[in-house]
Amino acid sequence: MEVFGDNSCPAPLFGFGTHPEVSPPFPPVTVDLLPAKNGEEPTMQFLLEVVDILTNYVKKTFDRSTKVLDFHHPHQLLEGMEGFNLELSDQPESLEQILVDCRDTLKYGVRTGHPRFFNQLSSGLDIIGLAGEWLTSTANTNMFTYEIAPVFVLMEQLTLKKMREMIGWPGGEGDGLFSPGGAISNMYSVMIARYKYFPEVKTKGMSAAPRLVLFTSEHSHYSIKKAGAALGFGTDNVILLSTDERGRVIPADLEAKIIEAKQKGYVPLFVNATAGSTVYGAFDPISEIADICEKYNLWLHVDGAWGGGLLMSRKHRHKLNGIERANSVTWNPHKMMGAPLQCSAILVREKGILAGCNSMCAGYLFQPDKQYDVTYDTGDKAIQCGRHVDIFKFWLMWKAKGTVGFEQHIDKCLDLSQYLYNKIKNREGYQMVFDGVPQHTNVCFWYNPPSLRGMPDGEERREKLHRVAPKIKAMMMESGTTMVGYQPQGNKVNFFRMVISNPAVTQSDIDFLIDEIERLGHDL
Amino acid sequence: MEVFGDNSCPAPLFGFGTHPEVSPPFPPVTVDLLPAKNGEEPTMQFLLEVVDILTNYVKKTFDRSTKVLDFHHPHQLLEGMEGFNLELSDQPESLEQILVDCRDTLKYGVRTGHPRFFNQLSSGLDIIGLAGEWLTSTANTNMFTYEIAPVFVLMEQLTLKKMREMIGWPGGEGDGLFSPGGAISNMYSVMIARYKYFPEVKTKGMSAAPRLVLFTSEHSHYSIKKAGAALGFGTDNVILLSTDERGRVIPADLEAKIIEAKQKGYVPLFVNATAGSTVYGAFDPISEIADICEKYNLWLHVDGAWGGGLLMSRKHRHKLNGIERANSVTWNPHKMMGAPLQCSAILVREKGILAGCNSMCAGYLFQPDKQYDVTYDTGDKAIQCGRHVDIFKFWLMWKAKGTVGFEQHIDKCLDLSQYLYNKIKNREGYQMVFDGVPQHTNVCFWYNPPSLRGMPDGEERREKLHRVAPKIKAMMMESGTTMVGYQPQGNKVNFFRMVISNPAVTQSDIDFLIDEIERLGHDL
Repeated sequence: MEVFGDNSCPAPLFGFGTHPEVSPPFPPVTVDLLPAKNGEEPTMQFLLEVVDILTNYVKKTFDRSTKVLDFHHPHQLLEGMEGFNLELSDQPESLEQILVDCRDTLKYGVRTGHPRFFNQLSSGLDIIGLAGEWLTSTANTNMFTYEIAPVFVLMEQLTLKKMREMIGWPGGEGDGLFSPGGAISNMYSVMIARYKYFPEVKTKGMSAAPRLVLFTSEHSHYSIKKAGAALGFGTDNVILLSTDERGRVIPADLEAKIIEAKQKGYVPLFVNATAGSTVYGAFDPISEIADICEKYNLWLHVDGAWGGGLLMSRKHRHKLNGIERANSVTWNPHKMMGAPLQCSAILVREKGILAGCNSMCAGYLFQPDKQYDVTYDTGDKAIQCGRHVDIFKFWLMWKAKGTVGFEQHIDKCLDLSQYLYNKIKNREGYQMVFDGVPQHTNVCFWYNPPSLRGMPDGEERREKLHRVAPKIKAMMMESGTTMVGYQPQGNKVNFFRMVISNPAVTQSDIDFLIDEIERLGHDL
Repeated sequence: MEVFGDNSCPAPLFGFGTHPEVSPPFPPVTVDLLPAKNGEEPTMQFLLEVVDILTNYVKKTFDRSTKVLDFHHPHQLLEGMEGFNLELSDQPESLEQILVDCRDTLKYGVRTGHPRFFNQLSSGLDIIGLAGEWLTSTANTNMFTYEIAPVFVLMEQLTLKKMREMIGWPGGEGDGLFSPGGAISNMYSVMIARYKYFPEVKTKGMSAAPRLVLFTSEHSHYSIKKAGAALGFGTDNVILLSTDERGRVIPADLEAKIIEAKQKGYVPLFVNATAGSTVYGAFDPISEIADICEKYNLWLHVDGAWGGGLLMSRKHRHKLNGIERANSVTWNPHKMMGAPLQCSAILVREKGILAGCNSMCAGYLFQPDKQYDVTYDTGDKAIQCGRHVDIFKFWLMWKAKGTVGFEQHIDKCLDLSQYLYNKIKNREGYQMVFDGVPQHTNVCFWYNPPSLRGMPDGEERREKLHRVAPKIKAMMMESGTTMVGYQPQGNKVNFFRMVISNPAVTQSDIDFLIDEIERLGHDL
């Protein structure tokens, strides 16, 4: 076996360097950490060294004089930076090297909590959430039974109930789970819709059902199509709905496509309404969609992965009016509410249907003869067996901020996006991708360098404009000053999509972004 | 909206208590933490307070004089313990209360790293892995693109290659992903098998394929059935294979069932061989199963979620002989290799098939016109969109232990299980569920209290014996001294399943478990 080298295991030389708070001598290798005999002291010293690295990183994350990232190409990192070698080997490294590895891992990464990181829907570094994640890792348990996660199971239950109250389901009744991300939450919604109308598919497979079709906006997240492919519907049976110029589903198009599908002999099953689309931040008109779903007896899912957070704001929650009529909702606190990754909930109005859909009653885990009330063993509702504890950080953040704290955060981010919108809507060189104040924090725009400004519209100009955003983005990453996303959409060439979910962002950071786009893009 | 209360937000009184290393005065509320102006100092103080709580917990976890758990029923925790209230409210809590919440969350939880916690396949608290998780939470990023996770994406790639080398695929070639647990990894295997043989299902759905059947052992993990249900095969089309008395698949039964299915006009697609079954720790004979899969042109998946770790041991890896012939493998480092939860890999021999099966080419995330080599953007291979960073802790552990360190850990745990087996196989009051030295660390046994020892075999004795393990387990949990799993299996009444994966366990802990079973069970 060539993967093993010499099995003798020499103790590497070791020294913690010159950290002032820790005094030598130190144990030479990791085998001296707990559970080793007398391992307590070296363990505490090692963990405090790690925390020192982490808290320094936290400080720098919030420091605008530091870079967002120190970009390197894959081949550069793979070849090995000075003292940082990604390759694994047969023999152990010294604890000293492990600490260096930790520092370097952070050094060559991206500071997603930096006030000028605008690249993803998830950004920011919430200190309470971070503490919650540290505790979660230390508790190192699993959500499948009350037996080994009593506190976390109850926290999940209470938090989901609170979220259902925010949705507006009577008494907060219903069901739900935290799942590993919005795509899986959306997949759950399709699974349970199918189980509701065709429960025999669980045992007999898709051949027990007629040809089922799902409807979702052409602007919706790709996870609905992924679910269609994975669950055996086929992507051809995921019918895309037309949207207005703001990216919102046109209800009449939904109804027309339902009728068309029925005429072809297909069976409409499920409609996804997006509350906060990925690119435009658009909110589909949920009430009108709910009317159609009721009329044709279809499952209504609301994908609020990105927009669900607005339910916490008295000022903005009207954008989700009608969500209380949904059968299921996806809502990711790790996006607009700033919870650390991962934190996504699938919420279901009908109690018991998640278990009905997914349970297999594994005897080794869900014994009926335990001494406690086993209805608290929630694992059999999930498609996972082991399930990571995603609840604690979010529960702790809610405790620390209160509902009002989330509201303030949401309102502030939306105010900032309006500030950006107002700043650029009539500014020379900028063109908005759609008109009007954004519904969410998404602000979509083209930047036209001076060389394009006099050019007549046409294929040549479009081609040039298509290359502007990637070029500016590449320069941003090379200089490490800021990060913002771009993409084409439909027949629209590459444009910037600015989003704000980080509470550290201020107007000056928005100003910086605009200055930076102009600095880097001026001569293109 | 009744979920909001008064929006005015009075600053709660605040004090950190008497922690000696931190001096007052302290900021009153969480809004003074970063990103607040002058938030750095209170943030550092708060994080160090949290770390103090966590390191105290770590110390106690390894201390045999502390309890494994302090059991409370759900209604007790829900009613609220002294100073610990799980309910969420509109108004923020003080930082002082947040720290109390952290302490209490750990207090009422289960110490899964305690040397006497034997309840699950995942146990132990690896210090390097823990440090890795703390860093991962601090980096708070997402695996979908190289753009925002350059280091982690490369670590994943290199580690998966190393794992494929251990499996024995030539040159470590192939593909893979870390997924949120073994059940999802197994689900991937079924999806890609279907895509390999019937790629049109991706677009057209299951109606484009004939009636497909999957084969897996009656002792296999329930996630194969869950995948069958979720992906549209139906559980009726998951055919269970008979096993020998040790829980290993009988190859002749597989072949007979394949032939039977074909005779019925069904199309055999996929065989799952379990390497380390959940209850018995059985290893199916992979080579013989591979012969049959080759003969009938079926996809061979090896579920090594539990047993995959044995590949790291020169002494025990022969139990997985033939795994190099598998098309896909599930392997959970969070089980036998002690990585913190969650850490599960799906490994695939054929390159490109994961992407072929799952990609939807979302333009907003996987832009083809980035400045770096976009083949490193791996997100579109996954059924998730956002994907938690599960790799770093495992990579760091591998660095710190080397391959040889994992080998020593595996060998030690298997030695300990043999110690247990030798201790009880002829001990009065014990009866092994199956004969012979366990293949994995699973030791399955009944404990017969004295009152049952003279009783003739029969229904009455079986009923009484069935109640023994749950009663002992309940008393263990109430007294908090140790935890071990039990379950029925097939026609066998409740028996204990002892498993060892925690490197903190010693022979004395095994002795303790046996003493405890006898102490608690003697008078039943």
